[in-house]
Amino acid sequence: MAQGPTFSDEQVDYFMQESLNEAKSARDEGEVPIGAVIVYENQIIARAHNHREANQIATAHAELLAIESANSWLKSWRLEDTALFVTLEPCIMCAGAIINARIPVVYYGAEDSKGGATRSLYTLLEDKRLNHIVEVHDGIRSKEASELLQLFFSDIRAKRKIKKINNFYL
Amino acid sequence: MAQGPTFSDEQVDYFMQESLNEAKSARDEGEVPIGAVIVYENQIIARAHNHREANQIATAHAELLAIESANSWLKSWRLEDTALFVTLEPCIMCAGAIINARIPVVYYGAEDSKGGATRSLYTLLEDKRLNHIVEVHDGIRSKEASELLQLFFSDIRAKRKIKKINNFYL
Repeated sequence: MAQGPTFSDEQVDYFMQESLNEAKSARDEGEVPIGAVIVYENQIIARAHNHREANQIATAHAELLAIESANSWLKSWRLEDTALFVTLEPCIMCAGAIINARIPVVYYGAEDSKGGATRSLYTLLEDKRLNHIVEVHDGIRSKEASELLQLFFSDIRAKRKIKKINNFYL
Repeated sequence: MAQGPTFSDEQVDYFMQESLNEAKSARDEGEVPIGAVIVYENQIIARAHNHREANQIATAHAELLAIESANSWLKSWRLEDTALFVTLEPCIMCAGAIINARIPVVYYGAEDSKGGATRSLYTLLEDKRLNHIVEVHDGIRSKEASELLQLFFSDIRAKRKIKKINNFYL
């Protein structure tokens, strides 16, 4: 396993708070609220939130956008001395991007039982057959990350219901 | 499984030839030679080749770039009526992107025993637990795709050897 940066509990808390703030920005834009930051030498060098609907780009997940931004910042496709913080368990694509970018440490919040590829459906980041193994920390401020998602989807369901009632009376 | 477009053998051959041409463009730019095209209504709407070194972006694989280009062309993150042709078996990241973009059919060339996530290490595109299953056709003009890769890497090794000899005499 590649040696990555280490953090105090306060730092982990702070960087996940920043990821949660990104998730809130996504929510305010009508996107599924997921946020991520990438840390290098104790500084956030990239931050992003889910942007799929606005961009109509299938790959515009928070982690992927943050990785591309960190690549640009460091002028390197290798993110060997960084750590990624993300509010939701990465999907298959994002787990693959984390491996491809050689990120050594990942902290995530809520689990994704339907599409999570880090602990739920697969443990892709810890596959010893691959040329890069990632240190994974799960469940960081997971309650807040889950609540953001639950509220977002219950809000969508409520809006659909009102629309249905309105259509009935029109 | 989602119903995707179907092709004659001649069409499959043609679209893979176009992917091989993209792979050759990558080679000519000093990139690992991998190419991809995306087809919609029997037309190529997106073509791309590996661009990792030039861009220094870890995610700049042929498939991912082609998917993003097709999203822009169709103005939709959903690529439901398309097919992806790629010269090498997709990695984890690209398999995830194919699923996220809802591409129903994938044709690929050479197998990637070390990182392939479609047949070699995983069969991610055919996982029934996910909300999208992909129809996979492997081994399409695989000899040509393999040869391009083998020649590229043997060329790099030869150049390294010459450099070593030159350094010895300097």
